[in-house]
Amino acid sequence: MKLTVISERRRQAFRDVRERGFADRTSIDEVFAWIDRYARITEPERIAIEESVGRFLAEPFIAPSNVPRIDRAESDGFAVRSCETIGAASYNPIPFSLQSPRNALRPFSAALVMAGVPLPLGADAVVPFDLSHAEEKFIQVILPVAQGDGVNRTGQNVRQEDVLIPSSRPLRTSDIGLISGFGINEISVLRRPRVRIIVAGSKSSVDRRAVDVNGPMLVPKILRDGATIEGFRFGIESVDALAEWVSRPGADVVIICGRTGTGPDDDAPLALATAGEVSIHGIAVHPGSSTGMGFVGEVPVLLLPGSPLECLCAYDLFAGRLIRNLSGRGPALPYRAIHAKAGRKFISSAGTTELCPVRLKGEEAIPLGSVSGGDFASIARADGFVLIPETMEGYPPGTPITVYHYDGFNEAGGLL
Amino acid sequence: MKLTVISERRRQAFRDVRERGFADRTSIDEVFAWIDRYARITEPERIAIEESVGRFLAEPFIAPSNVPRIDRAESDGFAVRSCETIGAASYNPIPFSLQSPRNALRPFSAALVMAGVPLPLGADAVVPFDLSHAEEKFIQVILPVAQGDGVNRTGQNVRQEDVLIPSSRPLRTSDIGLISGFGINEISVLRRPRVRIIVAGSKSSVDRRAVDVNGPMLVPKILRDGATIEGFRFGIESVDALAEWVSRPGADVVIICGRTGTGPDDDAPLALATAGEVSIHGIAVHPGSSTGMGFVGEVPVLLLPGSPLECLCAYDLFAGRLIRNLSGRGPALPYRAIHAKAGRKFISSAGTTELCPVRLKGEEAIPLGSVSGGDFASIARADGFVLIPETMEGYPPGTPITVYHYDGFNEAGGLL
Repeated sequence: MKLTVISERRRQAFRDVRERGFADRTSIDEVFAWIDRYARITEPERIAIEESVGRFLAEPFIAPSNVPRIDRAESDGFAVRSCETIGAASYNPIPFSLQSPRNALRPFSAALVMAGVPLPLGADAVVPFDLSHAEEKFIQVILPVAQGDGVNRTGQNVRQEDVLIPSSRPLRTSDIGLISGFGINEISVLRRPRVRIIVAGSKSSVDRRAVDVNGPMLVPKILRDGATIEGFRFGIESVDALAEWVSRPGADVVIICGRTGTGPDDDAPLALATAGEVSIHGIAVHPGSSTGMGFVGEVPVLLLPGSPLECLCAYDLFAGRLIRNLSGRGPALPYRAIHAKAGRKFISSAGTTELCPVRLKGEEAIPLGSVSGGDFASIARADGFVLIPETMEGYPPGTPITVYHYDGFNEAGGLL
Repeated sequence: MKLTVISERRRQAFRDVRERGFADRTSIDEVFAWIDRYARITEPERIAIEESVGRFLAEPFIAPSNVPRIDRAESDGFAVRSCETIGAASYNPIPFSLQSPRNALRPFSAALVMAGVPLPLGADAVVPFDLSHAEEKFIQVILPVAQGDGVNRTGQNVRQEDVLIPSSRPLRTSDIGLISGFGINEISVLRRPRVRIIVAGSKSSVDRRAVDVNGPMLVPKILRDGATIEGFRFGIESVDALAEWVSRPGADVVIICGRTGTGPDDDAPLALATAGEVSIHGIAVHPGSSTGMGFVGEVPVLLLPGSPLECLCAYDLFAGRLIRNLSGRGPALPYRAIHAKAGRKFISSAGTTELCPVRLKGEEAIPLGSVSGGDFASIARADGFVLIPETMEGYPPGTPITVYHYDGFNEAGGLL
């Protein structure tokens, strides 16, 4: 879109909060509803099978052939006719002559086979080494085997045309082995959303700090949520330059970080209103209340506060949710949810959703004081956080609560 | 070490199971005890802060300065003397003259400040925009503020010399922001273990398949467990070539995949006995019973079966555990542990630990038939697996069991 054709109406439509403050803030549920209109990007792309862990197949994977393709030995041992082993016992060993596995099996003969090789014609079972004694030219079988014992029949594991891997779940390392086993090296997966990050510093020290702090923090979070970085830009930009950066094609999501508040420099919302539309600015959440969002054409644009703590919270709750929707991971927070009990009183304001960092002490979650001082460092001391809904004014001690644990490591079954 | 000085004694010490079978198998607890003698590699390395998510600090991170370094505005608004706002109300607004924030505050004056900037001398609180009406040259304050309101005092968030980030947990994205905020771009973390993979195909078709299937599967699993790939080698090697590949310096762990069974080609244990020592070969586990382990000098060597299903199970249970020990992630399985109930009867052999793939149906875990056919494809249909201890012969329906879920995604709080 051309910036020259921006209507004055648009600039007027959004409420400029600079040096005024927010008149009202949007509830978190309304914000989630706005975000959740964005769904999975379904464009496919071809990638190497080795790169595909965690990606989603464009189509379910259909078995291109039977597995096994032919009857084969399931384990190492001696291929025999099972009926000839009836009555074998350690006190009544039955002798079998050894022969080559390449020829059809002669009566009371056995052929040495390794797991995976085709059975010789006539053989219908494999005697494992521990149920036989091998001599120079024959073996003694000391226990009978049944038809099919030690044999892996054609199509027993997988039938041609079977749906082997659904497209509804992320690919696992075992899927990679499975697909590779058919001699396939490249597959179609859904492409990742492309995220543009604009860290928009201003002249105030906190926003200059945002340049150093928020960029390195947002990049790994965006990758974690299944997207790629389409572009990264930081610096002190004019409103028009910001508006132009937001409008450039190529991204599925644009994040502007910084300049969302009520200071005179906080013109990220104005830049979005110039380039497109501001749908929401000001959210009833703490920290992160100056978060905004809207779109330019079809592309959603997220405005995150520049203060690192607010940026972190707003990313996880809002920007990350949008990106996880687009990447197919779904809206849930990418943290392990743990059941705990409030170890002390939790305080929050009715009408505002509060993200409260906590420390875990056994089954108890202890709130880590106020984060109202923009105390980003408190996050380092936290094990995770609790979300106190806007309908509550906190929790009395002993209330059962859900803690979102920051570390992907689980003492019981650790995960990264 | 030089291969020419290998003693014949060593070759004799290990029991050759080829074409004989295993006389006995080591219990999984003994194997875990062997693996768990290996602990965290504690050598530090310097890396860029952006690359450090999930790594462990070599030393706890100590705050190099106070945060904030000086008293500063916590939010956008007007810096005032709090005592002068006493009595302010919407029906009794108190006027303050506007002045520059660079000068000391005059009586009944206010200075426009943005979050993060130093307070003017004399100011002890910040009035947010929504508690004031701004005119041309003065503001009306409509609610009193207390001393310290809207102010972030020197050292309030972090005191110099405080321990900010422990070295006991992996670094998070927020830590990266926190460290970056001090202007630090590079940190010391513990280095990752280096893993050499040797996929040792043989002439049997199953082991040739291992070459295609297991390599692509092992690489992402090793990375997941916090290690790097030191080298990757695959092909049909002689025993001496295998022994030499195992002995070359540079790796913290060597994995040989394939040729661990009882067939005539299964000479990976012999190669290990030639180069070093075989401590364990044959484990009371299913699948994965032909797994072995030992060492060459100080370097542990894992022998994994070539059949993809057995390789997968043996990696997760044994090789992965060793690597997770070395990388500091700890021995626990890297899967989400879920409480479920046996939805049907589970069958296993007493004396053998059984890894049984399951499908989840609500709270019930349904066993996915037998995997004795090396039915690697069953893993794709599974949601996870259950470990049945060697002391059990299975579970009757309704037994509470733990399911290890393959997908890092959690409907309640998704994780990759």
